[in-house]
Amino acid sequence: MAALNDLSATEASARIAAGKLTSEALVTACIQRILSREKEVQAWAHFDPEAALAQARARDKARPQSRLHGIPVGVKDVIDTHDMPTEYGSPIYRGNRPACDAACVAQVREAGGVILGKAVSTEFATRHPNKTRNPHNPEHTPGGSSQGSAAAVADRMVPIAFGTQTSSSIIRPAAYCGVVGYKPSFGLVNRAGLKFLSDSLDTIGVLTRTVPDAAMIVEELSGSAPAPFDEADQLKPRIGFCRTAYWKQADRATHAALEGALPGLARAGAKVSEVSLEGEFARLAEVQVTVTSFEFYRALTHERTRFPDQISESLMGRILGGSRVTRAQYEEAQAVAARCRARLDDVYRDYDVLLSPSAPGEAPKDLGTTGEPIFGLTWTLMLGPAVTVPAFTGPAGLPIGAQLAGPRGADARTLICAEWVRRALAA
Amino acid sequence: MAALNDLSATEASARIAAGKLTSEALVTACIQRILSREKEVQAWAHFDPEAALAQARARDKARPQSRLHGIPVGVKDVIDTHDMPTEYGSPIYRGNRPACDAACVAQVREAGGVILGKAVSTEFATRHPNKTRNPHNPEHTPGGSSQGSAAAVADRMVPIAFGTQTSSSIIRPAAYCGVVGYKPSFGLVNRAGLKFLSDSLDTIGVLTRTVPDAAMIVEELSGSAPAPFDEADQLKPRIGFCRTAYWKQADRATHAALEGALPGLARAGAKVSEVSLEGEFARLAEVQVTVTSFEFYRALTHERTRFPDQISESLMGRILGGSRVTRAQYEEAQAVAARCRARLDDVYRDYDVLLSPSAPGEAPKDLGTTGEPIFGLTWTLMLGPAVTVPAFTGPAGLPIGAQLAGPRGADARTLICAEWVRRALAA
Repeated sequence: MAALNDLSATEASARIAAGKLTSEALVTACIQRILSREKEVQAWAHFDPEAALAQARARDKARPQSRLHGIPVGVKDVIDTHDMPTEYGSPIYRGNRPACDAACVAQVREAGGVILGKAVSTEFATRHPNKTRNPHNPEHTPGGSSQGSAAAVADRMVPIAFGTQTSSSIIRPAAYCGVVGYKPSFGLVNRAGLKFLSDSLDTIGVLTRTVPDAAMIVEELSGSAPAPFDEADQLKPRIGFCRTAYWKQADRATHAALEGALPGLARAGAKVSEVSLEGEFARLAEVQVTVTSFEFYRALTHERTRFPDQISESLMGRILGGSRVTRAQYEEAQAVAARCRARLDDVYRDYDVLLSPSAPGEAPKDLGTTGEPIFGLTWTLMLGPAVTVPAFTGPAGLPIGAQLAGPRGADARTLICAEWVRRALAA
Repeated sequence: MAALNDLSATEASARIAAGKLTSEALVTACIQRILSREKEVQAWAHFDPEAALAQARARDKARPQSRLHGIPVGVKDVIDTHDMPTEYGSPIYRGNRPACDAACVAQVREAGGVILGKAVSTEFATRHPNKTRNPHNPEHTPGGSSQGSAAAVADRMVPIAFGTQTSSSIIRPAAYCGVVGYKPSFGLVNRAGLKFLSDSLDTIGVLTRTVPDAAMIVEELSGSAPAPFDEADQLKPRIGFCRTAYWKQADRATHAALEGALPGLARAGAKVSEVSLEGEFARLAEVQVTVTSFEFYRALTHERTRFPDQISESLMGRILGGSRVTRAQYEEAQAVAARCRARLDDVYRDYDVLLSPSAPGEAPKDLGTTGEPIFGLTWTLMLGPAVTVPAFTGPAGLPIGAQLAGPRGADARTLICAEWVRRALAA
């Protein structure tokens, strides 16, 4: 029998609803896992076992009102919590205690969830690494910026953790750590109480070990109807294999894994064909730098003017790059993204989802990096849902993901297709 | 000679740049005005004369780096300041001191501006009134939600104040208090550090006594090129007179003022014709309620679950209304707004700006209301710039504004047209 901390959120939820599992037992198992593994993994910026247990015991006295009842959830440390420190991955905010929970945190509490702790974020959710290690091999990066969330979920310390994505900060660490990463459509999860870096792109999402777990929490928060995963097996998804404009930046193992998977997807019943997104799509990496650096420069004005010595050199370089971006350049970059979105709307008439790499390869053996965001940024800029599922194993024995992107607003369909692909590749 | 606190920001800026005025003298004049008038107007949630003077003296020791150098700016109390309380117009946040300045506040400081104090906001920038009175007649509302900002600028306590708008919270109080209100295109002013109510609509803007003042501060923050006001007199603007779908809700004085102004605008050189926005535009009031209540319910989860007794009955009603809005209804409402935006893009091929009422009439003689937002919400939902200029006087001797709306991103053109209209109506 699986240990309780191995349970998916949906399975734990069903057991709690049936009176066969207490939140206290579930949270206790998660705590024990953290206590035994945290020294190696370092996934948590703040973790208070007693406070978590107190929440769980209170849940056990109440009748479940939602599928999140009694379920422990980790919160990336760029999302505000009123009762735990929120340090945004920056020494500037050491010991910072916000006055208010972020909307998504308060919603989890209202739904009966247990806030287990704050998961490590890189500095302001950007690329500069923090302390977390890849639980599959501590010499490798877990990716970023949602590195604590990815590692904690992969290491079975918690079934669900919030992440955020501005380029590839959910998809990349999820792929590197071998878990599911779900970046919802822009705006699906309420952002009040998020530390804003790029208002036009910052998106709250989740890292989980199963696709239905990812769907469940976002549905609860956004008021969306539950995705009908029962129907996944009957699906004949129309899958566009999209190398993206950045295919050459993926390594040989990733090329081979994705290309090698196509016949199996077709055999399982998918209609698979290749989709080329070239032309202005090849400019999206540059667009992403222009948009985010322009917005970082403004959003972080307080920090860069008052605490420049406490900002990493690499982030300061990006911020100051933003000072040289003119408003006209920023608007032109946004216009390129808008034109690509319009082109993509046409593409999606023929496809349910587009399949692309989640990252250039396995997690690099280098704790000084969080890896390359190149395969996330296209879908972030397109504002639609993106899901990475663990699908392959690379030459170093580390996970490689497969990324499914769908039309903006079509989150349920995209999640079900992602689950279909995961099952087909696992078969 | 005008008192220093009567100076426009652009005039004061020119004098400071020329070495003919110190920030200390300017700020001292504003402080004296506040001290003599605040008891009646009650525009400020926080005001510390010594702290303001200390900033001004520091500015006077430095060389001006921007047009905001030495200029006092008021900040609506839903925008975070690290060195002043930020109470969001709610007793829940009494004494709250954020860790960080909002981006727009930090940008004003970096540009050399002086943060004069926090201007009164209604409860979380919604409709429930706070303490501010209309400076033209204290028995009348100043409007809301940016009521302190509007009253302080109108009463010449400060030349510029930040406001925010989610339906009509800049345009309405500006019109009621007889000042310029400028709601920029959505996203033009960085929103990091704003208390979010409706992520998809909340917009930071400004209240000033002149249109060039409003343009100046937003240009400085957004990196936009200065609008060429020198060319305003040569302009022959194409003005669409748009009664909107809500014309019947404006009073007779407003009807007469706007209709009566059209011949003068034509004589001054404008091409004026009537534009009808009916059909789905008539649904925008309902769309606005659906979108904002759905988002309020989520954004204010912490407050409504932990401090329900400290939320006004009227706001709690709107929040709980949001609990009954389904995701599908929300998305349908957003789709209506998107279709109206597409229709409006076509309309703007033939017009530079659309002229409509700023409010249903003069400021009501009722301190228990902040007036009706009906004439702001269309342009907020359309995401483009909207500017109200003081243009008329109503039967109670109070100001009536004229509102000019323009295409999203065409802020400079819209501001210049608004200035042209103001001059034409004043001639």
